[in-house]
Amino acid sequence: MKRTLGTCYYPEHWPEDQWGEDARRMVEAGLTWVRIGEFAWSRLEPVRGAYDFAWLDRAIAVLGGAGLRVVLGTPTATPPRWMLDRHPDMLALDEQGRARKFGSRRHYCFSHEGYRAECALIVEQLAERYGKNPHVAAWQTDNEYGCHDTALSYSDAARIGFQVWLRDRFSGDIAALNTAWGNVFWSMEYDDFAQIDLPNLTVTEANPAHCLAFRRYTSDAVVSFNRLQVDILRAHTDRPLTHNYMGRITDFDHFAVGDDLDIASWDSYPLGFLEDRVGADAARQRIYAQTGDPDFQAFHHDLYRAVGRGRWWVMEQQPGPVNWAPYNPEPLPGMVRLWTWEAFAHGAEAVCYFRWRQAPMAQEQLHAGMLRPDSKDAPAIIEAREVARELADAGDVAPAQAPVGLIFDYDADAAWQVQPHGATLSYFGLVFEQYRALRSLGLSVDILPPTVRDFTGYAVVLAPGMMHMPQDLKNALAQSEAHVVLGPRSGARDAHMNIPLPLPPDYPDLDVTVARIESLRPDMPRDLADGGRIINYREIIEGTADVVLRCAKGSAIAMHAGTGTYVAAWLDLEGWQNILRPLIQNAGIETIDLPDGVRIRDTGAERFWFNFTQEPHQIGAHHLAPISVLRQPR
Amino acid sequence: MKRTLGTCYYPEHWPEDQWGEDARRMVEAGLTWVRIGEFAWSRLEPVRGAYDFAWLDRAIAVLGGAGLRVVLGTPTATPPRWMLDRHPDMLALDEQGRARKFGSRRHYCFSHEGYRAECALIVEQLAERYGKNPHVAAWQTDNEYGCHDTALSYSDAARIGFQVWLRDRFSGDIAALNTAWGNVFWSMEYDDFAQIDLPNLTVTEANPAHCLAFRRYTSDAVVSFNRLQVDILRAHTDRPLTHNYMGRITDFDHFAVGDDLDIASWDSYPLGFLEDRVGADAARQRIYAQTGDPDFQAFHHDLYRAVGRGRWWVMEQQPGPVNWAPYNPEPLPGMVRLWTWEAFAHGAEAVCYFRWRQAPMAQEQLHAGMLRPDSKDAPAIIEAREVARELADAGDVAPAQAPVGLIFDYDADAAWQVQPHGATLSYFGLVFEQYRALRSLGLSVDILPPTVRDFTGYAVVLAPGMMHMPQDLKNALAQSEAHVVLGPRSGARDAHMNIPLPLPPDYPDLDVTVARIESLRPDMPRDLADGGRIINYREIIEGTADVVLRCAKGSAIAMHAGTGTYVAAWLDLEGWQNILRPLIQNAGIETIDLPDGVRIRDTGAERFWFNFTQEPHQIGAHHLAPISVLRQPR
Amino acid sequence: MKRTLGTCYYPEHWPEDQWGEDARRMVEAGLTWVRIGEFAWSRLEPVRGAYDFAWLDRAIAVLGGAGLRVVLGTPTATPPRWMLDRHPDMLALDEQGRARKFGSRRHYCFSHEGYRAECALIVEQLAERYGKNPHVAAWQTDNEYGCHDTALSYSDAARIGFQVWLRDRFSGDIAALNTAWGNVFWSMEYDDFAQIDLPNLTVTEANPAHCLAFRRYTSDAVVSFNRLQVDILRAHTDRPLTHNYMGRITDFDHFAVGDDLDIASWDSYPLGFLEDRVGADAARQRIYAQTGDPDFQAFHHDLYRAVGRGRWWVMEQQPGPVNWAPYNPEPLPGMVRLWTWEAFAHGAEAVCYFRWRQAPMAQEQLHAGMLRPDSKDAPAIIEAREVARELADAGDVAPAQAPVGLIFDYDADAAWQVQPHGATLSYFGLVFEQYRALRSLGLSVDILPPTVRDFTGYAVVLAPGMMHMPQDLKNALAQSEAHVVLGPRSGARDAHMNIPLPLPPDYPDLDVTVARIESLRPDMPRDLADGGRIINYREIIEGTADVVLRCAKGSAIAMHAGTGTYVAAWLDLEGWQNILRPLIQNAGIETIDLPDGVRIRDTGAERFWFNFTQEPHQIGAHHLAPISVLRQPR
Ligand SMILES: [Zn+2]
Ligand SMILES: [Zn+2]
Ligand SMILES: [Zn+2]
Repeated sequence: MKRTLGTCYYPEHWPEDQWGEDARRMVEAGLTWVRIGEFAWSRLEPVRGAYDFAWLDRAIAVLGGAGLRVVLGTPTATPPRWMLDRHPDMLALDEQGRARKFGSRRHYCFSHEGYRAECALIVEQLAERYGKNPHVAAWQTDNEYGCHDTALSYSDAARIGFQVWLRDRFSGDIAALNTAWGNVFWSMEYDDFAQIDLPNLTVTEANPAHCLAFRRYTSDAVVSFNRLQVDILRAHTDRPLTHNYMGRITDFDHFAVGDDLDIASWDSYPLGFLEDRVGADAARQRIYAQTGDPDFQAFHHDLYRAVGRGRWWVMEQQPGPVNWAPYNPEPLPGMVRLWTWEAFAHGAEAVCYFRWRQAPMAQEQLHAGMLRPDSKDAPAIIEAREVARELADAGDVAPAQAPVGLIFDYDADAAWQVQPHGATLSYFGLVFEQYRALRSLGLSVDILPPTVRDFTGYAVVLAPGMMHMPQDLKNALAQSEAHVVLGPRSGARDAHMNIPLPLPPDYPDLDVTVARIESLRPDMPRDLADGGRIINYREIIEGTADVVLRCAKGSAIAMHAGTGTYVAAWLDLEGWQNILRPLIQNAGIETIDLPDGVRIRDTGAERFWFNFTQEPHQIGAHHLAPISVLRQPR
Repeated sequence: MKRTLGTCYYPEHWPEDQWGEDARRMVEAGLTWVRIGEFAWSRLEPVRGAYDFAWLDRAIAVLGGAGLRVVLGTPTATPPRWMLDRHPDMLALDEQGRARKFGSRRHYCFSHEGYRAECALIVEQLAERYGKNPHVAAWQTDNEYGCHDTALSYSDAARIGFQVWLRDRFSGDIAALNTAWGNVFWSMEYDDFAQIDLPNLTVTEANPAHCLAFRRYTSDAVVSFNRLQVDILRAHTDRPLTHNYMGRITDFDHFAVGDDLDIASWDSYPLGFLEDRVGADAARQRIYAQTGDPDFQAFHHDLYRAVGRGRWWVMEQQPGPVNWAPYNPEPLPGMVRLWTWEAFAHGAEAVCYFRWRQAPMAQEQLHAGMLRPDSKDAPAIIEAREVARELADAGDVAPAQAPVGLIFDYDADAAWQVQPHGATLSYFGLVFEQYRALRSLGLSVDILPPTVRDFTGYAVVLAPGMMHMPQDLKNALAQSEAHVVLGPRSGARDAHMNIPLPLPPDYPDLDVTVARIESLRPDMPRDLADGGRIINYREIIEGTADVVLRCAKGSAIAMHAGTGTYVAAWLDLEGWQNILRPLIQNAGIETIDLPDGVRIRDTGAERFWFNFTQEPHQIGAHHLAPISVLRQPR
Repeated sequence: MKRTLGTCYYPEHWPEDQWGEDARRMVEAGLTWVRIGEFAWSRLEPVRGAYDFAWLDRAIAVLGGAGLRVVLGTPTATPPRWMLDRHPDMLALDEQGRARKFGSRRHYCFSHEGYRAECALIVEQLAERYGKNPHVAAWQTDNEYGCHDTALSYSDAARIGFQVWLRDRFSGDIAALNTAWGNVFWSMEYDDFAQIDLPNLTVTEANPAHCLAFRRYTSDAVVSFNRLQVDILRAHTDRPLTHNYMGRITDFDHFAVGDDLDIASWDSYPLGFLEDRVGADAARQRIYAQTGDPDFQAFHHDLYRAVGRGRWWVMEQQPGPVNWAPYNPEPLPGMVRLWTWEAFAHGAEAVCYFRWRQAPMAQEQLHAGMLRPDSKDAPAIIEAREVARELADAGDVAPAQAPVGLIFDYDADAAWQVQPHGATLSYFGLVFEQYRALRSLGLSVDILPPTVRDFTGYAVVLAPGMMHMPQDLKNALAQSEAHVVLGPRSGARDAHMNIPLPLPPDYPDLDVTVARIESLRPDMPRDLADGGRIINYREIIEGTADVVLRCAKGSAIAMHAGTGTYVAAWLDLEGWQNILRPLIQNAGIETIDLPDGVRIRDTGAERFWFNFTQEPHQIGAHHLAPISVLRQPR
């Protein structure tokens, strides 16, 4: 399959007589895809039940007629104002108990049955009308589930949905729930599922089992909300279905949503993300302010390759400054091209730039586009054209299994959020820092879902911080040929967020026990014996396995037996490198120590080198110009 | 007109037998004015409709009899408790949707019609009774509109008022509103004005057009609230009317309120302001902790001279530590005198100290007065006496047009608040930093309202950041003899907060186009080619005008043609000096590079030098002692 | 009385067949006490009115039969879920007006009469059943009043209770209240007590008199809530009653609660407290992250010795990492023993470790216990055994009056919270820093309640910051033989939070007047003439007393006459040492300058030396090993 480019377009934002010229210029720029429709509900159904598809018919005809392939979005992220009159209680409530008003987007509660029914109606209309339209080549459900903190809702609909979900999970046995959650602890026992409230606004922290259950319920609500649309679309079309996930939104299980879809896609805003969600310190934010973090997009690329079971896109690629971060600088020249090639290097089938023309109105008027508001070329279209020319000579998408697998478990992220233990601790952060270390060693990485049981082909598999680790996963890992790196906190909780007995990690043939834990202030790192430091978090471990890493004062930090290694701490980059480098080399995989900001990614056909820095780098025989992409055949 | 002094007094706070002695000591200290009444509603109308003016009659008689001139305040900032029983919904709601309770002051919503009617009744009573009282020489409406974040209210009254206001502005045409606001963007289109809610608590940011309209509505509500009182007062008195604005409260258009009044006045708390609203960094707050910022009061003096169309007062002057800032140190000895003279140098007719005697009770018991709670002299009265002696020999208020005009537009401030684009960006901050640069060059400055169209007499006019710049203003500026300095962001939006075409600034005979913008992290300033730096914000500009300022890397930062110059960035002090100094000198105006903390102000008769520092300074022939005022005849 | 050890145990959390072995191991470890029951309401009364005491009978029998003495807690901190159905309005409302939900603990409003009646019923049941049980050797009421910010509630119940309380305090005379509070200030006068709302959510700060009255009401509500249980228990048992106060919870008067009890106890979590409430800066938090602040526990030990009128315990002693602080590191080896001995050195009768076994479930599953979740020994039990062995040879509790008394007044803490004047100011902080200075001089200190009038035996008494200082206290101090150190802010307000006349301190035979005050930025300390600095806050004083401390610029900071000294500023440690050291020496008391982290405490029989540092210290003849306790017979 050839790699392709695209853009996001809103025909409803522009005079109809502009559509044709826009389409012509899209094609001229080398674009294949145009995504439309996902915010247009008020134009598709201006009055409830009175549909107006004529303009969309014409828009699709114009775009398709110009040679573009349309991705059609369902508009359920933007219910029109009339919806509120029909369903005044469809609004989500925030954690403070305040209804989140109409006036922007995503103003719905996933649990609201009335709103779900309305979504089914509009999706049905769209599916029937365009399911076999020759220009509509793919579908997108809704838009950025969970963005703007919209997955978790504390509404009555959510409360009732949660109670039903719990009743179902515990087969109607409230005593079983009380036992599973340990509700005896503070006389928190329930007599009936109808007594269970949502775990917000409690006097002090709610029971972590209660909190985790609510997060699991929420994730299931997103999955079923999406599935409702998928089922309708499938009945009318055989085109691939996707959803565009948002960066570092972890409030629902993307793998579970993805299982119902054909292609995963995500929205990549490297500069905005660096400012508001990467978690880098200020110095690092300063260094990469105009390039984005060198590992953050790569991590998501690898994540969504897994979510899409190999098929994935960047549905929205930052083209210039965004409008929504605390600070919104311009990307350095060359970055739009670099980001695009980086996505392709990680296996993307398509990269679409958000958006075609900068909007002169409303919330995103300071979000750059491929065109300026006056329709002149913005820098993004110029770099996109360059990529389009390069793609003409480039090979097809060439998948290749990476030598290292890294398990990412949304449920573990939820568990850490519920019970971080230290103010700086998060599951995402832990996994991402291990990922960064792997990349700094020159490795390509496959992200693996927590449901995988076949590890064939991986020399090394990491499963850090996976709080609840089912026994059959432990067994599958232990029986695989991979070297397995666990910890910290892997297997630290049972299915209901209790400390299990025997104590963790309880991993086959690895006599290591986490006796105690402690979280550390950011200003009290602890030196490792041979370089690097413990930061954030540490476990005190016992057992007969071989000690393969010690802190400077001598206590065991990592222990090893057979193919299993348990790392009992959160390490800094040097620490992770020091434990992982020999382990990976022993597994027969070559490592390359890369400077910060230089990264490698291997496909089946090529090795890609990326230089995110403004300085040139010489790595062996390879000269990397500042802000550059180097493609090396394999 | 002679310059005069005064104080703020609360007869209702003190035993009646103390009034005479207080009045005598006010006169002895050289005071002319005494402001009273503005918080006394519960004593003027203890029970609804049952007025008690006897005590006020006597207080006015005692004060007036002693030779003082009374400024009588309407008490509408402090509705009594019984008002709540009549109008339970008169309370403003904060942005979080919480009613703001009784128990302090300003607990009313400007939009509440019932409360307005109550205000009309008490003002009518006061106006009838005292409108022609020989001792009542001026009137003050309410007290510090907008203080404590009270302009913007999210109440039902405000929502309904906003809907009516919108219906009126769009002539009942909801489609016109949808188009003007670009509501199609996220299916935010309305079918009816009654559907439009206030723009708080939305899921993500509301439409900036929606937000700006609500701020404009709020401003109009304050104006009409004030006008209601003005109309009543005018029917009964020919004495001048004023309102005491609060420092850096920009949530309504002070020019529009001021147009209904005769004199502008403001409440000047230099040390409190430095701690809580100047926006200085900690180092600067430390340096000026006991003097106040050397430009902040001056800026307001010049602003309120404009608001009062030449006539203005300081109605409340800080006399010692206040009670309300995060930290409340004492002014250095001499500062009360310095602040007083500074106000006179900027054209004040009167300076009144807040308050006469420190209150032993209630919220402001730690706010210094001219007297201590035990009636002994506090430092302020001693310095006031010194000013009074100096005033005896001083000339009259001597107005003089400044060589430089600087437009201040409350609507632009609202637009920037709605859409800052960078976390450190504000319109007030931008204008104030340009003002500081002008002052650091030894210049006197006139603040100009955005409605001015005659620029006669100004060598230079600056209009930074004025987001919406009407075409007739552009034309008037271009046709004036002044050199005009625009940017950044001047003309960046149309009347409804949309990006206009052609792109900004679209200024006559100045071929400059803002192609793109970016906001910058505080830790990523960019060097200018010849000293100084870009901070906060930058635009990329194109065009054929002459480049007169470049960044170190070469791109154009300011361009010039004819009498117009566009500056495409937020600069640091040195940067502003470097662009403005030659421009002003070329306009025939002398500049003097002043040290930080030393400032000049010219009246028609004198040049005033102020030294806010604790070190002496020698500037040419002038020796400035620490914390001093030097008056030099012109 | 022998010093004893104990633990906190939750039989309801564990299988009944585990109780016996647990009891055996408690005895084996040298424990005397086992506290049970305080969170078990849902098991004691699973359905309202249907009690189940059988399990508790058996638990007490097993524990008592093994030789342990039971402390039985009333379970009123954890009302079961059914309580909400009976009393939906029993939940406290937070300062933002939000009901605080069921799902953790302490979800009740102290003012709710319905809940109080429910508490009376369960306490009556327990008292009747166990009041004379031979194994039940003491009782605890509720658990940690005020923890999780639960003393102050903004509910309807609290509002009505407050109105009744005010009506009572002002004998139904609303005019008296208006006068006492100075409500005329901003027309805040009330016509009726029923109009008085709680002082939250006001537009700007509420009247400090209003706020302080509400805090006093709240304190009284806690006292009467506790007294209700005490009265019932007393009717059925002659065993001592206690309550376990929480560290640095000052929202009610612990002396007043303590007056109804026999023994005071408190819950000591040195590492958690250092992270979240000591108020130390980051550098100090880092240094003592694994030992806790060297003075914070000692202060509370001395405080609760006063609250208990000599009889006090540590009811919960941190045994390892807690779960609730921002960061939760392990104590250094030896700290559990050190903390235990420190409590005994300050006069504790018993120290109980919280908790016996780490819970695998619910909110505190990451709180260490004496046992690990798998029942293996955790470090705490090993150190507890060591203390138990040492206790076998140690003498009895040996009380001794300290040479220095320091008054702690909860009402003053409330007054400072209501009116801090500077962002860094708190009464607790001021008293604690004076306490630290006394301890750094090698002194033992008695905390004194504000009601004490007999100062016999004290060489020096300090009463810093006691805002309202009744005349009879001033007289008692002035007539005592002690040297008295007042200030800053001592006597600064009258009984209703007004500035008194004559101005403070108005202390017998000490001609000092506080003329003015100022609060200081943290970055603007002021040097004292002979070492040390003024920080945070300063008063300008006048009078004829001798100046005994000056700032570097010469103004008086402390003045002295007869036996009285007034200190007119908040000083740093060196400053306090410099004023206190000579004063104490002159009073005939020896001082020893101790390094930071080394502390002394004298009992009647021994001098204890504690080294909280990881370095050895030599003080005179005494060698202190790192993290050590040295006992020296007196
Ligand atoms: Zn169908
Ligand atoms: Zn009239
Ligand atoms: Zn009884």
